[in-house]
Amino acid sequence: MQAACTRTVDVAIPLPHLLMFDLEPPPSPSPLATMVPSQDDLKRVAAHRAVELVESGMVIGLGTGSTAAHALDRIGDLIRSGALRDVVGIPTSEWAAARAAAAGIPVSDLNAHPVVDLSIDGADEVDPALNLVKGRGGSLLREKMVEGTSRRFVVIVDDSKLVPRLAASGLAVPVEIIPFGWALTLRRLQSLFDGVPGFNLKLRTASIDAKATTFDEKGSDSEPFVTDNKNYIADLFFENGIHGDLRVISDAILRITGVVEHGLFLGLASSVVVAQKDGVVVVVVKDKAATSNGI
Amino acid sequence: MQAACTRTVDVAIPLPHLLMFDLEPPPSPSPLATMVPSQDDLKRVAAHRAVELVESGMVIGLGTGSTAAHALDRIGDLIRSGALRDVVGIPTSEWAAARAAAAGIPVSDLNAHPVVDLSIDGADEVDPALNLVKGRGGSLLREKMVEGTSRRFVVIVDDSKLVPRLAASGLAVPVEIIPFGWALTLRRLQSLFDGVPGFNLKLRTASIDAKATTFDEKGSDSEPFVTDNKNYIADLFFENGIHGDLRVISDAILRITGVVEHGLFLGLASSVVVAQKDGVVVVVVKDKAATSNGI
Repeated sequence: MQAACTRTVDVAIPLPHLLMFDLEPPPSPSPLATMVPSQDDLKRVAAHRAVELVESGMVIGLGTGSTAAHALDRIGDLIRSGALRDVVGIPTSEWAAARAAAAGIPVSDLNAHPVVDLSIDGADEVDPALNLVKGRGGSLLREKMVEGTSRRFVVIVDDSKLVPRLAASGLAVPVEIIPFGWALTLRRLQSLFDGVPGFNLKLRTASIDAKATTFDEKGSDSEPFVTDNKNYIADLFFENGIHGDLRVISDAILRITGVVEHGLFLGLASSVVVAQKDGVVVVVVKDKAATSNGI
Repeated sequence: MQAACTRTVDVAIPLPHLLMFDLEPPPSPSPLATMVPSQDDLKRVAAHRAVELVESGMVIGLGTGSTAAHALDRIGDLIRSGALRDVVGIPTSEWAAARAAAAGIPVSDLNAHPVVDLSIDGADEVDPALNLVKGRGGSLLREKMVEGTSRRFVVIVDDSKLVPRLAASGLAVPVEIIPFGWALTLRRLQSLFDGVPGFNLKLRTASIDAKATTFDEKGSDSEPFVTDNKNYIADLFFENGIHGDLRVISDAILRITGVVEHGLFLGLASSVVVAQKDGVVVVVVKDKAATSNGI
């Protein structure tokens, strides 16, 4: 364990029991456990727990965002200390590439390293079946490519990211779209969810903090946000979360011409490391038997 | 009729009867009918027949390629002669935009003109149900956006483009993919069709004439072909044509992360104008009742 104030409980439970997981309190809390950890502390704790899985010689998918940053920094520390050798990182964004370089992690790409042993990344939301919403930071496509091809994909979150249903937090489900005809693509996305109470969408603009993309009726004159792939992002909002079969909804979104990819990561996470406010780290492992239906 | 050597037969037939259509020979062939028309003559004949549908005030989707070129030129002629007024063109490619400008057609885009009255474009293949393969010229995504949102989409071909089954001509089914991780995307496309006899694929390169993209085992050191959207093209080859449910295959391709769009145009064509070698033009109209299953 990297953090003195935590206790790790590894569980492989039949899904969807994550949110009902009845955890005993730590039997002998350390003195630090009485301090209230910040959200960033929790992110670091989860990240360091995941980095324990990294071994010398591995090809590692490097996530994007404030939680993944802790993992990158930790991997860099372990390389510098000599504890890890011959690790190659596959960044999921330009941001991750820059951060990895700063941390001293050698980086490569999927064409040179088609087999990724382990990816570690944060998520915006995690549901009880370990389906995710990702990409509020705008790099959903590269994340999905790298993490979708990884032998193991470990998600690191603090417990504020756990939701009973995807999109239920009221924040955006991002959809990466081609700039050509973007207004038409937005109309088609709108049509797809016509009649869904509390549904809204908007083109993400460069002036909006991507992490605060709750729906706002006010228009904006600023330029569209542009992804690493030079595409735009449509942010979809479901006031009551997404109801219905997520795979059917995924296919319907992907069928719209102009849509490149969406931020619903269905069946991709191997496990989720959750740092809880009480200082306990819970590792939930996907029940492969329950999700082997062609994922 | 614009061309003296042709006779037009408009048919609305239950599909898939196009290829079995039993056409009487022209009762009184003109003197020109004894000349063998070139393929380009046939393209022009089909294009001019389709342009008869253009009315003043319409927003017109402008296709890409050697057949569409005849339609663009014809529309330009009619504008210059005063026969057409207030027509706005929505180009499906940079090429079409340039050709329209040269022909004197005012152009706009889908964001300014979300409702397209009529699109006219060629196709690489047409099957008996009026499903198409398009995009060997590399502009499949823009074509699908414009033509998919048109009230009416008229396809213009010579009869060499009629196939009993899509991809049966041995030429490519193009798939537009994101440059990031392109080799992985190709591997995933390969996996999707593993076990299909005669299946092959390759990344389209800039040195290859897109119109001659039959599969060639030889590698190439040249740069990848880049689309108007700055993406790459994976060319898929099915030696025996595509067997199976085209919509299921379409969904499976779109589900691969990194795939933007493919060149299977399913259920989009309203009608197909076919210029035959015998000088007869056949217009096949989609049986809406037979193809209304959610298209």
